[in-house]
Amino acid sequence: MELQVHYEEKPCYEIVIETDPNRLPEKLGAMAIKNRKLCIVTDSNVGPLYAREIQALLAPYAKEVIVHTFSAGEENKNLNTVSDLYRDLIEHKFERSDMLLALGGGVTGDLTGYAAATYLRGIDFVQLPTSLLSQVDSSIGGKTGVDFDCYKNMVGAFYQPKLVYMNLATLKTLQEREYLSGMGEIIKHALIKDREYYQWLQANLSAIKEREVSVLEEMICRSCEIKRAVVEQDPKEKGERALLNFGHTLGHAIETLKVDTYKKELALGSKEASLLLHGECVALGMLASMQISKERGWIDPTLCQSVKKMFLDLELPITTSGITPEAVIQASKNDKKMEDGKVKFILLHGCGEACIDRTVTEAEMKTALDSILEESF
Amino acid sequence: MELQVHYEEKPCYEIVIETDPNRLPEKLGAMAIKNRKLCIVTDSNVGPLYAREIQALLAPYAKEVIVHTFSAGEENKNLNTVSDLYRDLIEHKFERSDMLLALGGGVTGDLTGYAAATYLRGIDFVQLPTSLLSQVDSSIGGKTGVDFDCYKNMVGAFYQPKLVYMNLATLKTLQEREYLSGMGEIIKHALIKDREYYQWLQANLSAIKEREVSVLEEMICRSCEIKRAVVEQDPKEKGERALLNFGHTLGHAIETLKVDTYKKELALGSKEASLLLHGECVALGMLASMQISKERGWIDPTLCQSVKKMFLDLELPITTSGITPEAVIQASKNDKKMEDGKVKFILLHGCGEACIDRTVTEAEMKTALDSILEESF
Repeated sequence: MELQVHYEEKPCYEIVIETDPNRLPEKLGAMAIKNRKLCIVTDSNVGPLYAREIQALLAPYAKEVIVHTFSAGEENKNLNTVSDLYRDLIEHKFERSDMLLALGGGVTGDLTGYAAATYLRGIDFVQLPTSLLSQVDSSIGGKTGVDFDCYKNMVGAFYQPKLVYMNLATLKTLQEREYLSGMGEIIKHALIKDREYYQWLQANLSAIKEREVSVLEEMICRSCEIKRAVVEQDPKEKGERALLNFGHTLGHAIETLKVDTYKKELALGSKEASLLLHGECVALGMLASMQISKERGWIDPTLCQSVKKMFLDLELPITTSGITPEAVIQASKNDKKMEDGKVKFILLHGCGEACIDRTVTEAEMKTALDSILEESF
Repeated sequence: MELQVHYEEKPCYEIVIETDPNRLPEKLGAMAIKNRKLCIVTDSNVGPLYAREIQALLAPYAKEVIVHTFSAGEENKNLNTVSDLYRDLIEHKFERSDMLLALGGGVTGDLTGYAAATYLRGIDFVQLPTSLLSQVDSSIGGKTGVDFDCYKNMVGAFYQPKLVYMNLATLKTLQEREYLSGMGEIIKHALIKDREYYQWLQANLSAIKEREVSVLEEMICRSCEIKRAVVEQDPKEKGERALLNFGHTLGHAIETLKVDTYKKELALGSKEASLLLHGECVALGMLASMQISKERGWIDPTLCQSVKKMFLDLELPITTSGITPEAVIQASKNDKKMEDGKVKFILLHGCGEACIDRTVTEAEMKTALDSILEESF
């Protein structure tokens, strides 16, 4: 299954959806890898599972294939990790004509894409997303970047991959919680753009939970199509692309604060300390945004109920604890989804109908956050 | 005097050549700075001379104008300095719609452009070059970047400015040696592209040394036109743009090695330790490249003599000491002007006629370097 992505009206790269990696040599062969060095960039979780396999698969077709592994975790998505990668590339004498392959989830794709955008003023890179979240969302559209100090994706570049190749078989090795977390972004696609897709998700929920391949294929393909349509229309987020930030304004703030809380709990010796995954934070952010939309009378309360039910079925959180509404509001003001000092919100006018809104007041945020933040902490 | 630069066949930005900064508010006003924050990025040499003047000039027209000053020197053109700038921008809540102004020489322009390319995945920036070298060369064409470990411009991006505005009056405050060093790049333009311009430079050498404004205007304009023509034709250095690297392959290697030697001499307590400036290293690199061209019978020995005479008149070096040909050859192999393991040389077929050559042997390099490296060290 192949989807062509355009950039500024010209064909730019393909999204290839397969259930094995076998067509990768053919797809990369078309990019003359015979004369190019490849560096597979991966993290300490995904590397041991797939890096050697991909290296062995490509070695006969490329000039040289090396593997660079960094420590897994969002906390390593920073300029130090990128610098380690630069050093490895310099040591192996990588030149402008060589290529990086991002093998892993969203952190790996974002970080590798950023290194590719900036090493020698830009070398080619390919996305080999292995998580549900990266397959349907972060690998498509050319957003690359790393966190800076406590700010998510503060440093980055718009830089398009040369190919996105996903092997859905990798989803089998995803931990249950990580897999389900990816559903956060998928439900987002349905809620902002496609009511029918939302209904399809409802109807196929148990097959999705069972990771039935044919259902996964259809779902991933539909989500990729939605993401593609949005980024083709607005590659640099000057307008419409912001709709993909549905759930992210407060979601990112919650994600950042939960990391702080987690570190404090660890320092106090807590054994129950836990982080929220990105998709889980987006789920909470979407509920808060829907709460605002509901309070404004823009959407029916039954839609909120239906989404909450779907989240519960998928073991996505509908509340969290340990952080205050005030802290979330403050953190969201530091986020980059600001314009002229106003926080940019994505709200819903119905299922499949999102809009950008810059009029959300702090009082509205507070009410919405009260509905997802438990007081006990 | 205005030159329009195109990018991918569309008008992209103007080069404005003036003898005062008075038209800057008008030019920036056309970019709606009324609603934008501006950050003037400058170094500790140029800042004290011009930053407050530009800030005061623009303050009435912009939402806010701040100044960010970093320590002058090529040794600070690195990711740490960029990170300090990111932090200042975050602290002042700079958003995607805000803008950076690079006020200074080549280091300031390259570093500010790179920060602009990567902060929030890219914000606008403007070049206000104050040195001869940056006015005729580095401010035009969208090459941005910083050094990484000991590698020059290893990390960077192609990112176009929104405007290049130069006030030739700033040349008056340039130190003699820095001013003359800028002549290295100007002679380069003539040698690679324009025989008539070379003759014009010869004829006007004393006026150039006196910094006569009308002659400077003509010279800077002609050099900007040459640079513009090359970068318009090949913005990402896939071919022809490499001609601008004439003198840089060995020049960069010499520059890097001289820094090492300088540090060692300082450590030994030498009081005569000195660095070579970029334009001076390029001058040496050009002589070496011309030596190779001469040995191959491609250019007449009288051209080499004529260029050497011009360098002597301009107090540009024609030899240097303290480094070995072997070290220069090794360092040039680590440089990024490599392709498929071959060092990419720019050679001359005559005055104004440069070509890319990948067949230069180590023996040829050695002979050429022997002609510019003094043995005493």
